[in-house]
Amino acid sequence: MDSNTNLLVVSAHAADFVWRGGGTIAKYVKHGAHVSLVILSYGIRGESNDLWNIEGQTYDNVKKIRRSEIEEAAQALGITDVEYWDYQDYHMQLGEERMERLVRKIREVRPHDILTHGFKDAFNPDHETVGKFVFDASVLSTSNGVRIDGTATAKQSRIFGFEPHQSEISDFKPELIIDITETYEQKLAAMEAFKAQKHLHDYYDAKARLRGNHARRVSGNNQYKYAEAFSRFFPYVGGEFV
Amino acid sequence: MDSNTNLLVVSAHAADFVWRGGGTIAKYVKHGAHVSLVILSYGIRGESNDLWNIEGQTYDNVKKIRRSEIEEAAQALGITDVEYWDYQDYHMQLGEERMERLVRKIREVRPHDILTHGFKDAFNPDHETVGKFVFDASVLSTSNGVRIDGTATAKQSRIFGFEPHQSEISDFKPELIIDITETYEQKLAAMEAFKAQKHLHDYYDAKARLRGNHARRVSGNNQYKYAEAFSRFFPYVGGEFV
Amino acid sequence: MDSNTNLLVVSAHAADFVWRGGGTIAKYVKHGAHVSLVILSYGIRGESNDLWNIEGQTYDNVKKIRRSEIEEAAQALGITDVEYWDYQDYHMQLGEERMERLVRKIREVRPHDILTHGFKDAFNPDHETVGKFVFDASVLSTSNGVRIDGTATAKQSRIFGFEPHQSEISDFKPELIIDITETYEQKLAAMEAFKAQKHLHDYYDAKARLRGNHARRVSGNNQYKYAEAFSRFFPYVGGEFV
Amino acid sequence: MDSNTNLLVVSAHAADFVWRGGGTIAKYVKHGAHVSLVILSYGIRGESNDLWNIEGQTYDNVKKIRRSEIEEAAQALGITDVEYWDYQDYHMQLGEERMERLVRKIREVRPHDILTHGFKDAFNPDHETVGKFVFDASVLSTSNGVRIDGTATAKQSRIFGFEPHQSEISDFKPELIIDITETYEQKLAAMEAFKAQKHLHDYYDAKARLRGNHARRVSGNNQYKYAEAFSRFFPYVGGEFV
Amino acid sequence: MDSNTNLLVVSAHAADFVWRGGGTIAKYVKHGAHVSLVILSYGIRGESNDLWNIEGQTYDNVKKIRRSEIEEAAQALGITDVEYWDYQDYHMQLGEERMERLVRKIREVRPHDILTHGFKDAFNPDHETVGKFVFDASVLSTSNGVRIDGTATAKQSRIFGFEPHQSEISDFKPELIIDITETYEQKLAAMEAFKAQKHLHDYYDAKARLRGNHARRVSGNNQYKYAEAFSRFFPYVGGEFV
Amino acid sequence: MDSNTNLLVVSAHAADFVWRGGGTIAKYVKHGAHVSLVILSYGIRGESNDLWNIEGQTYDNVKKIRRSEIEEAAQALGITDVEYWDYQDYHMQLGEERMERLVRKIREVRPHDILTHGFKDAFNPDHETVGKFVFDASVLSTSNGVRIDGTATAKQSRIFGFEPHQSEISDFKPELIIDITETYEQKLAAMEAFKAQKHLHDYYDAKARLRGNHARRVSGNNQYKYAEAFSRFFPYVGGEFV
Repeated sequence: MDSNTNLLVVSAHAADFVWRGGGTIAKYVKHGAHVSLVILSYGIRGESNDLWNIEGQTYDNVKKIRRSEIEEAAQALGITDVEYWDYQDYHMQLGEERMERLVRKIREVRPHDILTHGFKDAFNPDHETVGKFVFDASVLSTSNGVRIDGTATAKQSRIFGFEPHQSEISDFKPELIIDITETYEQKLAAMEAFKAQKHLHDYYDAKARLRGNHARRVSGNNQYKYAEAFSRFFPYVGGEFV
Repeated sequence: MDSNTNLLVVSAHAADFVWRGGGTIAKYVKHGAHVSLVILSYGIRGESNDLWNIEGQTYDNVKKIRRSEIEEAAQALGITDVEYWDYQDYHMQLGEERMERLVRKIREVRPHDILTHGFKDAFNPDHETVGKFVFDASVLSTSNGVRIDGTATAKQSRIFGFEPHQSEISDFKPELIIDITETYEQKLAAMEAFKAQKHLHDYYDAKARLRGNHARRVSGNNQYKYAEAFSRFFPYVGGEFV
Repeated sequence: MDSNTNLLVVSAHAADFVWRGGGTIAKYVKHGAHVSLVILSYGIRGESNDLWNIEGQTYDNVKKIRRSEIEEAAQALGITDVEYWDYQDYHMQLGEERMERLVRKIREVRPHDILTHGFKDAFNPDHETVGKFVFDASVLSTSNGVRIDGTATAKQSRIFGFEPHQSEISDFKPELIIDITETYEQKLAAMEAFKAQKHLHDYYDAKARLRGNHARRVSGNNQYKYAEAFSRFFPYVGGEFV
Repeated sequence: MDSNTNLLVVSAHAADFVWRGGGTIAKYVKHGAHVSLVILSYGIRGESNDLWNIEGQTYDNVKKIRRSEIEEAAQALGITDVEYWDYQDYHMQLGEERMERLVRKIREVRPHDILTHGFKDAFNPDHETVGKFVFDASVLSTSNGVRIDGTATAKQSRIFGFEPHQSEISDFKPELIIDITETYEQKLAAMEAFKAQKHLHDYYDAKARLRGNHARRVSGNNQYKYAEAFSRFFPYVGGEFV
Repeated sequence: MDSNTNLLVVSAHAADFVWRGGGTIAKYVKHGAHVSLVILSYGIRGESNDLWNIEGQTYDNVKKIRRSEIEEAAQALGITDVEYWDYQDYHMQLGEERMERLVRKIREVRPHDILTHGFKDAFNPDHETVGKFVFDASVLSTSNGVRIDGTATAKQSRIFGFEPHQSEISDFKPELIIDITETYEQKLAAMEAFKAQKHLHDYYDAKARLRGNHARRVSGNNQYKYAEAFSRFFPYVGGEFV
Repeated sequence: MDSNTNLLVVSAHAADFVWRGGGTIAKYVKHGAHVSLVILSYGIRGESNDLWNIEGQTYDNVKKIRRSEIEEAAQALGITDVEYWDYQDYHMQLGEERMERLVRKIREVRPHDILTHGFKDAFNPDHETVGKFVFDASVLSTSNGVRIDGTATAKQSRIFGFEPHQSEISDFKPELIIDITETYEQKLAAMEAFKAQKHLHDYYDAKARLRGNHARRVSGNNQYKYAEAFSRFFPYVGGEFV
């Protein structure tokens, strides 16, 4: 990852990109990669429980708060290119027009890697919808019969999937474990931005430690303290074993 | 892969390392890596059908021929460090003494990567036995309570699995597809060494083309012409997406 | 397969029926079966990359070329009953009206066997959509509460699934391997009709050889030279082991 | 199960709740639980084959008969709270409005347990649609950003899945086997209500005996004579092994 | 199946061949096939619970009774070629000498089809051991480097797996459902021979009815009343869809 | 769980019963159940890395230390009935004599529940061996043809599997999540007994918090703070949903 790398992150709700990939994203930024972040929804209906517990809460106010939290978290991770598509969540409806919008985005960003939700996520139907949506858009982006004005066909991006909240019952297998020791403080800061979800700070702190333990066990490298796990959508292709 | 890389290849029978990984092994050699090859058996009982079709064939003569073929194939790939453990095949019996021998070997070679058979291989029980055997030895090699004179505990090697002959009914998933375009001629020459198995030359030539097509489709890189596929025994651990 | 056999083939795009089942279909025709072919789309958006690389290409011209290629391929295989439903591809939208159209078709053809796409096909969302669409239509066709003027309820057809392009990552298992040695020349001729996709001629030629090798290994029958693999949607039912 | 227990049963078609869970539901009623039954469709198109075999049959007449059968079956099981949502079946279309209706229902009933169709059911696409629909509704019911007038957020219900008709090819695993010996006569009576489906009486009688055998074998308890099997949508959570 | 067909049945214990395949075996006999039956053990330790409940029971007496039951059952099915290998069960130990004995048997019988236990059988470790043992023997039988005096290399037999007692938790999928209506009376008679296991008569009667229902549903053929289900060890290979 | 409950715990190595089930075991003890603990090995070769790092370490000294740690941990959990079978680990060899010993133990303890290792545990072949060993022994214990002097046939115990260290790559699914909030202090104390494995204290503390989060999310019960996850070897059988 360096200044030639383009990474596109597609997050279903406000905070997904932080809990599930914040440390890794921050590393890409730190090492000079260009990171584009698309926030599909503010998670107003499905992932703002604590905000709605406040008497007199309104839809618009929740949106305002979540927007501000995302901005703070993105800043903590060093991400400067953020788009808010403001779709309704729970359940997200992603028709052909939205598909074309994402295909256009992929053709503009021309990402080497895309980071988004995997195909299965127990208890979170939106995440499953988004995983399929992004994958399909990536396939369409490579087909030059899919004509979109002002865009040129892209090469197939690699796609990596976030770890879902409850990994095992979502059939998640950690196919890549990425060391995030050097940006872990940034991830903590980004998590802090989501003030209403404090129980998740502890949760993802514990998770990062577990994945760090796995990274050490599997590699024999004791420098790894904190890590994030990801799935991949198709095989590694390259010139040597990795 | 460079002169700091140690690759240990464990082949159940005479020709497995060629059909299933010859192109990749040749790349490691070419780029300066040290490659150690262990041939567990000559495949006399189970993988020398064509030789046994010759009237008056004997066990010792089959062994002699197979030994000579392996030497020729190893030379074609550039491998100079070969050990012949001469175990009986079909079915291979791998008890504690043989386990200790392999643990010792791993501790001596200290391979970064091990290449051997995966856990499942329809129609080839020996391959399954060897996959488990090598994996267990790699675990034991890292445990300093497993005391073997003159050896020091190793770090956990990464382990990669050969593609079995019939991939789908062996539940094989190509987790890594390695481009072998630059050493493909060497692989063809190595295959030629096994004169009695000509039908397999065509088979693995066709396979290398299919995997090359997959490599191009998945990566968008049209330089890939020939490829070999492998499984991995545990997740990738590292600093960035690969 | 004989003159009492009705085979219905449902192909998502222009050439799917050739790459994935051309040899088998030709055998059915050759042995007197009635084969009905439904081409759901011309694959204009998703499977005509090479045509779109030509400067000044238009949607209508791609359609014209693909139509002509299909006609030539069908002729090579001996298929005379072809329908072109001309749906848009990438992504195919198959609502209730189209479902009813296919139910009607099944009730008219009354196929013993249906050949179409399996449920999973990595990199090709249309194929997955079509597999589910055809299966559901086959179920509806047997239910006499699904009232469609001028049709009578059909018996449940057997359904067989094409091998997807990348079999393993599509979770494809070859449940039937059909020998196509006697019609292999016809399949080659049919593939030639798709002039813009020459790289696939080699690919499916290599694939037919691999499947032929598997057929020989599994059966011990050395007459099998070329073969095609298929999945099945539900168990074999009959009077003896097959 | 006692008078503090609320069980919500969601049945895709007229008779599903009887074949697949009648004995267990009757036990809940018998032990004082409150059981709410939602019949999504009368199964007019897809599960009334025998009625449509009668000359001159009409849609309205089938509906009338099925309604009367359901009432009789519910009575046999002791269920008094039944709603008929009268959606069209084969294929059931369950959009956002219907989703909100079910979320409202869950928030009103506040069920501890929900019983409905599992995610996979070969030969019955409606069952799969309904399983996903109910699961999603249960998730939405717990989210207080999903604002529905006059309702309060519910706690996550446990969800159990019916055994599909052909269990193995539907990937069904019996995760719970519930003894229904004490209500088996009621189940038989409820099945009798569906006069046009006599072949299924025998089928589900045989099934109950098989599951009884499994219950005895697994538990060593020979009191179990008849049983029903179910899947669960997420892990058991509690204070001790069960 | 006709007088050119050789079927080899390998049964782990006394009655397995009856419960799991009696109807199908009887059909082969009836239609003139040659059926060879190998009974590996009398099931004295693991499958004679009821006999051991009799006061003063002895090992030799259980063996005598089971032998006589097998003879009666074999007669009911029309099998005349039975071998009793009298191995101890629970747990069966199948070393190299026994492997060679089975390889020899396969080379003598030269079966087109082998019927035995599948690879997974919850609650019955012997069945799993035998499934692997028979499969491995079939592979060795085809290898002409496996030299056994007086035998000639065999062609690869097709192998079919019995349905285990608890199918779903044994990951059993019915890949073939064989109609046994015409020999069902014989199967009932054969089951009667095992007087101490009456609860299993009812169980396998119920099972045959369920599988008959599945056969009708999948095929639309209402002649099927009773059926047995089997798995297959590798794909169907042949000239047309079945 | 009360004074009528017998729980048998079979631990492959010194500390497995603590990391993976200490909180749950302590609950059983606390509520009056009788808990029998069998320690198959001291884990001298495979799980005492830190002890062997001490210069001049000996086999006997490691054994002494581990014995003392187990005693301290058992005391912290309240377990008084502990047996040390002192088998060699890495790899554990469990032949027929040891099998008979465990069958005898099961028949003596007559456990309602057995807690041991699941069938799959990446990086730990001993755990897999032990899982299969205990399962087979439980099956043999119920068979009255398995004659062991002085023992009477047992009823089939329920068997629960520990969570392996790396759950996902071991295909572990949490089928039961047991709240251990009330005994969590005891578990911490028991972990402290294993002084040389401090990195695991943190690991299993983090794990208990994650499982507590899952328990809350799945149940809606916010009392659950710490939890342990387990698999089950066969379905739940009982009178109502759990």
